[in-house]
Amino acid sequence: MTALSEKTEARCRASFARQQAMATIGASVRSVAAGDIELEMPFSEKLTQQHGFMHAGVITMLADNACGFAALSLMPDDAAVLTTEFKINLLSPAKGERFVARGKVVRPGKKLMVCLGEVFAEEAGQRKQVALMTASMMVIETSTGLRD
Amino acid sequence: MTALSEKTEARCRASFARQQAMATIGASVRSVAAGDIELEMPFSEKLTQQHGFMHAGVITMLADNACGFAALSLMPDDAAVLTTEFKINLLSPAKGERFVARGKVVRPGKKLMVCLGEVFAEEAGQRKQVALMTASMMVIETSTGLRD
Amino acid sequence: MTALSEKTEARCRASFARQQAMATIGASVRSVAAGDIELEMPFSEKLTQQHGFMHAGVITMLADNACGFAALSLMPDDAAVLTTEFKINLLSPAKGERFVARGKVVRPGKKLMVCLGEVFAEEAGQRKQVALMTASMMVIETSTGLRD
Amino acid sequence: MTALSEKTEARCRASFARQQAMATIGASVRSVAAGDIELEMPFSEKLTQQHGFMHAGVITMLADNACGFAALSLMPDDAAVLTTEFKINLLSPAKGERFVARGKVVRPGKKLMVCLGEVFAEEAGQRKQVALMTASMMVIETSTGLRD
Repeated sequence: MTALSEKTEARCRASFARQQAMATIGASVRSVAAGDIELEMPFSEKLTQQHGFMHAGVITMLADNACGFAALSLMPDDAAVLTTEFKINLLSPAKGERFVARGKVVRPGKKLMVCLGEVFAEEAGQRKQVALMTASMMVIETSTGLRD
Repeated sequence: MTALSEKTEARCRASFARQQAMATIGASVRSVAAGDIELEMPFSEKLTQQHGFMHAGVITMLADNACGFAALSLMPDDAAVLTTEFKINLLSPAKGERFVARGKVVRPGKKLMVCLGEVFAEEAGQRKQVALMTASMMVIETSTGLRD
Repeated sequence: MTALSEKTEARCRASFARQQAMATIGASVRSVAAGDIELEMPFSEKLTQQHGFMHAGVITMLADNACGFAALSLMPDDAAVLTTEFKINLLSPAKGERFVARGKVVRPGKKLMVCLGEVFAEEAGQRKQVALMTASMMVIETSTGLRD
Repeated sequence: MTALSEKTEARCRASFARQQAMATIGASVRSVAAGDIELEMPFSEKLTQQHGFMHAGVITMLADNACGFAALSLMPDDAAVLTTEFKINLLSPAKGERFVARGKVVRPGKKLMVCLGEVFAEEAGQRKQVALMTASMMVIETSTGLRD
């Protein structure tokens, strides 16, 4: 894994910090490398579905953001990232103390970046994959008025 | 559209009410028919992404739940619903006062139900589609211990 | 449905005719309107999977092409279409005498068009939906050297 | 990678051989291990799209079959496999002398297996990834009359 420049890392973290939805679900950054990001989030009762597990949509939010962040880390300074689509397979109920989403860029295109996202549940020192995502991130010129 | 029996509607609404994540995002039920459900949610600043629009993951939660609810409305009494996968295309930024997700069952299989989800942003009396989802919902026997 | 101009229709049909894969599977154009296309294909034993039904990949080819053609019908003259991703839910075994794929543009963006594809099996005058697709089609400037 | 038992391998290869669509596109088995399969296919002009590259639908057929085969390799003797859905991201034009699809089981569930598929183009000793797939394979009891 390649480290990010200080400038790029600061830019990615600032973009993450502007997302109020990330604060609402308690997400934070675990690790940062070029095109390869890990976010994490604790279990929270207020984000559960009817069986008491974390809602699939919340798991999806974390995975989507890990992918978007990974894409942003490879983009030029004057570009912003926009998710155009993703698909997620839910492999197991999201049951655990903590959830980690890893986003990796599989194809760093100039207009579109394709990413792979994996979400793991952690409990009592054990780790289990609970979701698998593929996502398309569009590279938007910030001259359009969109910030990263 | 076919109306649901009182019993089935009560069961679907009770399942929805058990989802704390739905309360957290402020979602409620707009309309209910057999295999065809509408949920709604107001704009909320705490659920925004970095550009100030509703986070794609929140839009996804609403669409996923509309699809799951639509599937549950067609299931036998002793079955619970579990999302196995979905894909969402984000058509426009989720900008509006209110968001409505409609879930419809396209294929009511015995083991798997395939659903189509559409999310619309409403603002100043106008409605614009912002997302398109397809989802697979597994029919789980509640004898497995899983409630609906 | 809006009719296409003669010029646009001719251009779409010429692009379709250049696809040797379409001749190989026996596909032809059934109907053409702006952003709304139907292709068809007879059953063929040489395109079956292990249970004697049409292979899911062949059904997918037809649906992908219907979506691509629908997108192309709305593009400017100097643009070519490229599928960037699609997802298909296979609703029922592809059993029938003839298969019809309908592609419709849901979101005609300048850079990306999102399409909905539906495939139906026809047999003895009956029609049954066998597949549901969502697809992203990228608008490529032909100045890049890519023809439509 | 774990080797398959002779019996399971024979069964998987026999199922592959029954797929006439695979003969039509010239596909063959490159490598076989438990839950991890590689199929290959030469370039063929009759399977091209309008720009002279292999049609995305053909690439999809190969990836779908690699995933299905990988799932079948982990199933009990009395089970058959049925693709319920897949999504594919097309990363680069399918340009090459030969195409290799690798299918791996990510989640070997009792009812549903989730697989990851990757397709590579090979040319002049070089290998480039051209597609990324995620797929759901349903485990069907052959007592239903469906053979593997």
